[in-house]
Amino acid sequence: MKQFTITVYPEKKKVAASEGDVLLHALKEAGIRLPSPCGGQGTCGKCRVIVKGGRCHASASSHLRKEEIAQGYCLACLTLVEGDMEIEIPPESRAAAGAKILLEEKSVVQDKLVLGKWEIETRTHRVHVQLHPPRLDDPRSDIERLRADLLTKGFSGDRLHCSLSVLRKLSKVLRDGDWQLTVTLMDLMDGVEILDVQPGDQTQYHLGLAIDVGTTSVVIYLIDLLTGLVIESAADYNAQIECGEDVITRIIYARTSTGLKKLQQLVIGTINKLIKGILHRAGMSAEHIDCAVAAGNTTMIHLLLGIDPRYIRQEPYIPTISSVPPVKVAELGFEVNNHAYLYCLPAVASYVGGDITAGILTTGMHKENFLTLFIDIGTNGEIVLGNSDWLVSASCSAGPAFEGAGVLHGMRAAPGAIESVVIDQNTLEPHFSVICNLPPVGICGSGIIDAMAEMFLTGLLDRKGKIRGDIKIPRIRESEFGREYILAWAKDTDTKKDIVITEIDINNILRAKGAVYAGCSTLLKEMGLSIKDIEKFLIAGGFGHYLNIRNAVVIGLLPDIPYDRFRYLGNSSITGGHLALLSQKLWREAEHIARSTTYFELSTSTAFMNEYVAALFLPHTNTSLFPNVEATLRETMVTD
Amino acid sequence: MKQFTITVYPEKKKVAASEGDVLLHALKEAGIRLPSPCGGQGTCGKCRVIVKGGRCHASASSHLRKEEIAQGYCLACLTLVEGDMEIEIPPESRAAAGAKILLEEKSVVQDKLVLGKWEIETRTHRVHVQLHPPRLDDPRSDIERLRADLLTKGFSGDRLHCSLSVLRKLSKVLRDGDWQLTVTLMDLMDGVEILDVQPGDQTQYHLGLAIDVGTTSVVIYLIDLLTGLVIESAADYNAQIECGEDVITRIIYARTSTGLKKLQQLVIGTINKLIKGILHRAGMSAEHIDCAVAAGNTTMIHLLLGIDPRYIRQEPYIPTISSVPPVKVAELGFEVNNHAYLYCLPAVASYVGGDITAGILTTGMHKENFLTLFIDIGTNGEIVLGNSDWLVSASCSAGPAFEGAGVLHGMRAAPGAIESVVIDQNTLEPHFSVICNLPPVGICGSGIIDAMAEMFLTGLLDRKGKIRGDIKIPRIRESEFGREYILAWAKDTDTKKDIVITEIDINNILRAKGAVYAGCSTLLKEMGLSIKDIEKFLIAGGFGHYLNIRNAVVIGLLPDIPYDRFRYLGNSSITGGHLALLSQKLWREAEHIARSTTYFELSTSTAFMNEYVAALFLPHTNTSLFPNVEATLRETMVTD
Repeated sequence: MKQFTITVYPEKKKVAASEGDVLLHALKEAGIRLPSPCGGQGTCGKCRVIVKGGRCHASASSHLRKEEIAQGYCLACLTLVEGDMEIEIPPESRAAAGAKILLEEKSVVQDKLVLGKWEIETRTHRVHVQLHPPRLDDPRSDIERLRADLLTKGFSGDRLHCSLSVLRKLSKVLRDGDWQLTVTLMDLMDGVEILDVQPGDQTQYHLGLAIDVGTTSVVIYLIDLLTGLVIESAADYNAQIECGEDVITRIIYARTSTGLKKLQQLVIGTINKLIKGILHRAGMSAEHIDCAVAAGNTTMIHLLLGIDPRYIRQEPYIPTISSVPPVKVAELGFEVNNHAYLYCLPAVASYVGGDITAGILTTGMHKENFLTLFIDIGTNGEIVLGNSDWLVSASCSAGPAFEGAGVLHGMRAAPGAIESVVIDQNTLEPHFSVICNLPPVGICGSGIIDAMAEMFLTGLLDRKGKIRGDIKIPRIRESEFGREYILAWAKDTDTKKDIVITEIDINNILRAKGAVYAGCSTLLKEMGLSIKDIEKFLIAGGFGHYLNIRNAVVIGLLPDIPYDRFRYLGNSSITGGHLALLSQKLWREAEHIARSTTYFELSTSTAFMNEYVAALFLPHTNTSLFPNVEATLRETMVTD
Repeated sequence: MKQFTITVYPEKKKVAASEGDVLLHALKEAGIRLPSPCGGQGTCGKCRVIVKGGRCHASASSHLRKEEIAQGYCLACLTLVEGDMEIEIPPESRAAAGAKILLEEKSVVQDKLVLGKWEIETRTHRVHVQLHPPRLDDPRSDIERLRADLLTKGFSGDRLHCSLSVLRKLSKVLRDGDWQLTVTLMDLMDGVEILDVQPGDQTQYHLGLAIDVGTTSVVIYLIDLLTGLVIESAADYNAQIECGEDVITRIIYARTSTGLKKLQQLVIGTINKLIKGILHRAGMSAEHIDCAVAAGNTTMIHLLLGIDPRYIRQEPYIPTISSVPPVKVAELGFEVNNHAYLYCLPAVASYVGGDITAGILTTGMHKENFLTLFIDIGTNGEIVLGNSDWLVSASCSAGPAFEGAGVLHGMRAAPGAIESVVIDQNTLEPHFSVICNLPPVGICGSGIIDAMAEMFLTGLLDRKGKIRGDIKIPRIRESEFGREYILAWAKDTDTKKDIVITEIDINNILRAKGAVYAGCSTLLKEMGLSIKDIEKFLIAGGFGHYLNIRNAVVIGLLPDIPYDRFRYLGNSSITGGHLALLSQKLWREAEHIARSTTYFELSTSTAFMNEYVAALFLPHTNTSLFPNVEATLRETMVTD
C-alpha cells in the first residue's frame, strides 16, 4: 500500500498515512485528536479540517457552508487520503478537542449539602497492630494471631476474608516488622477482609478516589479518608468520545468485535491518566489509595466493567446489572493498589444511572418532607421527583445540545466558549463573556440558553423559534442553513469566522428543552401534581460554572416558579461519589434510593409525546404556565 | 560446554547431557525419574544406577555395598557426567519410581463410616431456571430478574455475589437460551454466589473433586454431587518428591529463590494429570466440575497455595494459616472450571493438618462417648485422642520408614513390594506375598512390620533389635551394613540381588515405631489416662491394603489391647475430603474439630523423650505393657 505524508499546519507536523486511510484516523494515530461527537460517522460535522493541498477524496457534508467548501473545509471522518497532503486544523476543532474540563471548587461536600448529620465512616481502615510473638505454648497461626488482635479492636466478626496474595506475604511482613504491622481492612457484610499487610506503621496515608464516569467527561477527586477532604481533583474528556459522543453511539460501537474491549480500555486509560496526574500533584503514591467509588450512567458503568450494554438500547431497555458488587480494581487495570475495591453507585434503571443516585444522595431530597424536583442535564436529561416518602424518575433524550452538539458553533464549557450573552434591547447588539476571557471559539450550553432567551426577549425570535425576518440589521442574515444571528464577527473571533446562532441550532435547543420540560411535567402529572407544587427545584449538569436560571425559565427549559426555589448544584454525581466513599451510612442510603425509586419509561409514553409537542414553543404553547415570562414579554416587547 | 550422550539400558534410550551435569537431573530432564526421597542430597541411597561404561565422577555413598560399587552401582544424585556414558537403571530404582499408588475401593464413604445421620448437602448447586422475559412494565436488570427467581427457589438471601465474568456473559446467555438457563450457585455465609450461567438445562452433571494432597502421594476422587458416589479415582506420587521426600526437606527446598513456585507447580501438575486421566476415563468434561475439597498436612496446603512454609519448621512452629478461606481454582491453575472454588480442610496445627481433621471427621470420634485413639502413619505420624467432649493431638516424627525410606530394600506399597511375611518357626525360612504376585523388588511398610515381628517371634531378633549371631543359617550373614537376614534370594527377585533386612533397617523401624508408641502414651499420660482406657483404636495410613495388627502389636508399634478394638481405616484423609465435599454439615463439623482440638508439642517434651527411649525395644522396655505379646513369646521361644 502506498505511504504518504500529511503535513499539518500551523505546526508543520508530519503525519504518516497509507492510501485510502480515513484522515480522522490517521491524525488520531499521530496524536492529533479532533472532536468527533458522532464517532466518525459523518453526522456531527465537528471534525473540521482545511485541506490546503495534496490529494484526497472528501465526501460532501451538509454541515459545511458553500464558502467553507470553497476554502477547502472538509470533515476529516469523510476524507480519504490519496496522496501527500497539506492540511490545517482550524481553531474551532483545535479548541474543542484540546481544552480542559472546568472543575468546580473542591469543597463541594462541605458547601452544598442538605444531608443532615453524618460522620466519616469509611469501609476501609488502616490499623496499626502490635502483636505478641508466638511461643510454644501459644502456637496460633499468623493469621489467627492477627485476627484475635483485630477482634479486640472491634474489627473482624464472624468471618475473616483474606486473599492469597496477603497470605503469601503475611509471615514475612510479621517478622520483618518485628510483629508490628499495618493492616488495611475492608468492612464486609459478614466480617472483614484483610486487603493488605505492611510492616511497621503505615497509617498516616489512607486515601480514596471518587470518580464521576460521565459520557463526556471523567472527574476524579483524591480524598483523604481520615479528614474527608479533597486533596486534589482532575477532569478530562472521556477518551471514549472518539467512538461517539452519546451513549447510544457507544452502545452501537461496543457491538463490533473489539469495540467493547476498546471502550473499556479508553475510559480506564482516561482514569489512569487522571490518577497519575493527581498523585503527582499531591505528592502521594498509588499505594496510599485503598478504595474507589464510581458514579456513572448505566451504560458508562457497563463499559467500565466490560459488560456488553447492547440491551440497554433495545426495548424494553434492560441492563445486565444495576447494583454492581464491589470489583477489585486489579481486574480492571486501575493503577492504584491491586487490593483496592471499586464500588459503583447503584442505578435505578437503564437510563437513570448511578450518577443520578449520587445526585439524589447529594440533594438529600430522599430525607425531606417537601416536594423536590431534581434534574441532571448532561449528555442526557434525567429527572427525579419526590420526597422522603416516594421518589419517581425518568429520562428524556434531550441529547447533548446543551453540551454544544447539534449547534453549529456549539462547544463544551471550555476555554474560548461564550458562556453568557446579553443582547441590547435597543441596538440588538450582543455582549458576551468568554471562559478564560479569550477570543471566542464557539458557544457552550449556558451561552446558548442566554442567547436564545435574549433573542426571544428582544424580539429577534418568535415563539416558534424562528428569527424574525422583518428586523433588518447586519447581524441577521440568510444562509444555506436558514436565517442566522451573528453573535461575533469574524474579526473578533479566534476562528476568524463569524460565530452565529442559526435557526437549526435554535430548533435543536427547542427540542432539547422541550424534552426536559415535558419530562418534568409528565412525571408531575403521573403523580397527580403540577408545576406549582414544586417546593424545591435542583439542577445539576455540565453547564460549567454558570447557569442563568432566569434565561432557562424564559426559554421554557425550567418552569416559571419563584427563583428562590431553584438551586444549581453543578456536578452532583461526583459529590455523591465523594459522600458514598466517606460514609457507609450514606452508601446504604444510596442503595435504598436506587431500590426504591420508581422509573417511568417516557420514550413509549403518549402523555410525554403530547407534553413534548406542547413544549416546542417559547416558552411554551400554554402561556399560562409561564406567567412571569409573559409579564416580562409584555414589558419589553410587543408579543406576536 | 561440552555435550555428551548417555545411553540408558535396557531401552537404549539416548539422553543428552552437558559436562558436569548431575546424572539424576539429566535423566529427569529426559523424563526418566528415579526415586529420590532425600531430594537428591545423597542421603537416602535410592537413586541407584549401574554405570556400564563411559566417563563420570561418582562420589562415595555408604548406601552401596562394596560388591555393588564393584559392579558399577552409583547414586545418580552423586554422579557428575564427564563424557558419553552407558548406564542401566536397576529394577529396584525402576519399580519404586514408576509404580502406581494402590487405590482403595471406591465405596469408602458408604462402607466404613460411623458418622451418624447426614444427608448430601453440597455447597454448590446447579439450578435450572425459566425466567419471564422483561417487558416495559417489568424492566428489572438481568441479574435482578434472575435473583428474584432464585429467591423463590430458596437460594440467594441477603447478598448475591457475582463475578465480572458471569456478568459479562449473562445478557447473552439469557437471550441465547430464550430466558431458560442453568445457574451454578455456591452457598456463602451471607447469601449465594453465582459461579456460572449457561443457556438451557445443564443440570445433569454436577461434579466435585476430593483431593488428598499427601507428602508422598496425591489421591483424587471424582464425585457425583447428586448421588454422592465416587465416579472415578486416581492416585500418583506427589511430583514434589523429586525435591525431597519429607515435609522438612520440602520446606528447606522452598527457601531457594524459585523453590516455592516450583513445589507449587509440581503438585498442581500432579493434580492436573490426575484430573485429566479421571475425566478421560469417566467420559466427563472439566466443565462439569464445580467444587473441590483438599485435605493435606499444613505444609502441603501451604505449598499448594504458594504460601511460604518456612516458619512451620522453626520453633515455635507457626504456620501462616490453618483455616484457609476458599480459593478460586483459577488462581492456582487447576484445569477445571475457572469458577470452581477449592476448600482446604482446616488444620489443627503446623504438624496436625487438614488430613488429620479429615481423619477425625471420618472416624466420627468427635461425636462418640467412648475414648478413641486415632493414628495416621504416613510420612509422619499423627495421633489424636478423645471423644465427644474433648480432643487432643500430637505429631511424632516417625519419618517415612513405614513407607520404605531408611530401609535398604524398602519401597512404597506398589507392585513388586513384599507386603506380608511369615517365617517358619522351625526352618526359619520366610514365606511372603508380593503385591500383584510379581517377583519381588523390595519390601513395603506392612511387609517390614511382618518381617520384624516374625523375626522377633522366631527368635531371630533379640529385644534390642539385634539379629542373633548364634543362629547359624544361610539366611543370616554379616555384611558391611552389619548383620542381615535374607528374605529373598537373588535368583527369585526381579533385581537379581538378594532382598535383605539389615540391623540398620531394624534400628530405623525401631525408632519409628518407638516414636509412634511414645506419642500415644505421652498423650494418654497428659490426659491422666493409660493404654487400657482406649476403647477404640483406629489406624489410618499408607500401609496399602494390608496391615497385620497382631504383628504391629508384637513389634510394639501398636499397644497390646484386645484386637477387636483396632480398626484399619486406610486413607482417612481422602474419605474426610469426600465427606466434607458432600455435606456442609460435616464441613462445619470439620471446622469445629480443627478449632477445638488441642495440640501438644512433643518435640520439646521431656516426657515424650523418656517414653521414646523406653519404646526402643521389642516390644517395649516395660514388658508388663505387652502381656499378650509376652505370653506368645513364652509359648513360642525361650525369652532372653
